[in-house]
Amino acid sequence: MDAEAIVTTRAGDAIATLDDSVRLTAGTVEILDRRVFPERVEWVSAHSAEEVADAIRDMVTQSSGPFYAAHAGLTLTAHQVAGLPLDAARERMRQAGVALGEARPTNAHPREAVDRVLTAIAPATSTAELVEAAVSAGEAGLRHYADLSDALARATVALLPDGARIMTHCWMDAYLFAIVRAADQAGRGYDWVVTETRPYLQGARLTAHSLRELGQRVTLITDGMGAAALSPGSTIGRIDALVTAADRVSLDGAVINKVGTLGLAIAASTFEVPYYALVQEPDASAQSAADIVVEQRRTDDVLETLGVRTASPLVSEAWYPAFDVTPARFVTRIVTSRGDFAPERIRDYFAPAQGGRA
Amino acid sequence: MDAEAIVTTRAGDAIATLDDSVRLTAGTVEILDRRVFPERVEWVSAHSAEEVADAIRDMVTQSSGPFYAAHAGLTLTAHQVAGLPLDAARERMRQAGVALGEARPTNAHPREAVDRVLTAIAPATSTAELVEAAVSAGEAGLRHYADLSDALARATVALLPDGARIMTHCWMDAYLFAIVRAADQAGRGYDWVVTETRPYLQGARLTAHSLRELGQRVTLITDGMGAAALSPGSTIGRIDALVTAADRVSLDGAVINKVGTLGLAIAASTFEVPYYALVQEPDASAQSAADIVVEQRRTDDVLETLGVRTASPLVSEAWYPAFDVTPARFVTRIVTSRGDFAPERIRDYFAPAQGGRA
Repeated sequence: MDAEAIVTTRAGDAIATLDDSVRLTAGTVEILDRRVFPERVEWVSAHSAEEVADAIRDMVTQSSGPFYAAHAGLTLTAHQVAGLPLDAARERMRQAGVALGEARPTNAHPREAVDRVLTAIAPATSTAELVEAAVSAGEAGLRHYADLSDALARATVALLPDGARIMTHCWMDAYLFAIVRAADQAGRGYDWVVTETRPYLQGARLTAHSLRELGQRVTLITDGMGAAALSPGSTIGRIDALVTAADRVSLDGAVINKVGTLGLAIAASTFEVPYYALVQEPDASAQSAADIVVEQRRTDDVLETLGVRTASPLVSEAWYPAFDVTPARFVTRIVTSRGDFAPERIRDYFAPAQGGRA
Repeated sequence: MDAEAIVTTRAGDAIATLDDSVRLTAGTVEILDRRVFPERVEWVSAHSAEEVADAIRDMVTQSSGPFYAAHAGLTLTAHQVAGLPLDAARERMRQAGVALGEARPTNAHPREAVDRVLTAIAPATSTAELVEAAVSAGEAGLRHYADLSDALARATVALLPDGARIMTHCWMDAYLFAIVRAADQAGRGYDWVVTETRPYLQGARLTAHSLRELGQRVTLITDGMGAAALSPGSTIGRIDALVTAADRVSLDGAVINKVGTLGLAIAASTFEVPYYALVQEPDASAQSAADIVVEQRRTDDVLETLGVRTASPLVSEAWYPAFDVTPARFVTRIVTSRGDFAPERIRDYFAPAQGGRA
């Protein structure tokens, strides 16, 4: 493909399947099963907070999904306790919170939902008040999360002119949808170069699929092609920016994200392509990346592709760190819900009185 | 795995399956079918030079394989013409040469074999002389190729101390076997970190498999993990060198090799891990990488893994350059059959009177 062939597209009113992947209907939380998506669009039904917790534990949903599911589980429980005496209702909400908060030890999102809702119901003097407080807190939590993502997305779009060609890695989830919406509202359209993101192929499956649902132009590459695509004169055409989410950003401006990000960031830096790392807020508890434990995952995933053995049967050893650490010197700007920051100034996020950009 | 767990191994007398993948028996050339290896060890039988050419064209064998197969096809033909008059024998050898030389337009190896053998039979004054000249030339061609690889391997081993941990990408074929043998002879053993090398997975399949057959310690990683593995303090342990073959080296010291090499070389350079690129000889016809056309391959291979669709069904565009270009500044030494050179001095390969190392 050559540069002339690039067309930009508009998302319009399309909604990506993964942007509406947890639904609360009468008495049931429906959770899109990301384990089989996009081959199959199947929903897992949960009828109690414990069943929602089971689904979270079984990896039915990931990334932002457990946050949405925990909220839905708490709201479902609030509706279910409407006929109980206050103490029993409160106790049942507490049990639901324990189940949801413990579902996935390394994903803090469900516990945020639980803390917010249980704090909100503490002052309730009747079951009706409790139910209303729980439902309101749940709505507020989801709205707050969406607002932060939208603010982050507007700040990202401000860095990316109309027609920009963006390389992304892995799966940005809520940020991705927010960026496409914010670009649309700003009258901007982007083209996307998506790395497949082995071993789970989140890029080839979740990101590429969702972007196509939103009418975006997508070119898929393997993870090893990133540097070649970023290099000057590449036959893929000019890449204007590398944009990824960050699982965590430490206070020294290091980006902890899906393994593979580091290599892309180094190549982008070498070829003077800006790298923007997106996070709602930096991790105030991590002075440096050394304070963040990088989880080691099941090495069989490297020997397999989507559950099928693809490496030589003679190989038994593999290495699968979930994340890598990109030092601040390879990061151009860290984009947050409070605007974009130079990585070495990311501490300024917590001093908003000084104004947006640092 | 931690550094303490590293053990080095010795190849001993083991032979890798792919190191003996073309065999000439009475009236038949047997070619290992690399399309299904290592799941299945199947041989394709060819009873004429044309059938050998068909197998090469059908990608039964790749990399060094077509070179071996072309030699076997010519030697087979020489035996087959033993009963013919000289002119008919010569014409039949010429036909065999045309068929083999045209089998794979972008792989120059079979044509080298054809040129060598047809040149050798030109002075023959009898069919018996022709047959003997053809067989001798074939043997000499194979021996020359093995000698160059062995010289290159000894020069490589001279750069890699005992116990070194080597990251490699894709498939070095004859060089890989020569390095393991040369290390063994030098009393050295290495550990290997192998990138899987999407989309064809040559690393996960051919390289990892062959090294394991030779008793080597192998750790498999996905292509995106290369930079993380090369970075200081990585949990995979210290990597001592990045070592890859080069499909071509231009006279400005640029390395043209399997896509993915560039990103690894940049990361290695960033983290001060030496990168050694291996080629029997540089390409005297290419002043710079711009003189070498990088082949674009079938993009469906990016959307698939081993023939099975693994990307979202909504994605139709992909990019698959067969090779990438690593500029000389990211290459530590280019190792050839005449020793190792600084990349900016690779022209000295053609001035051997000046001595080995530059």
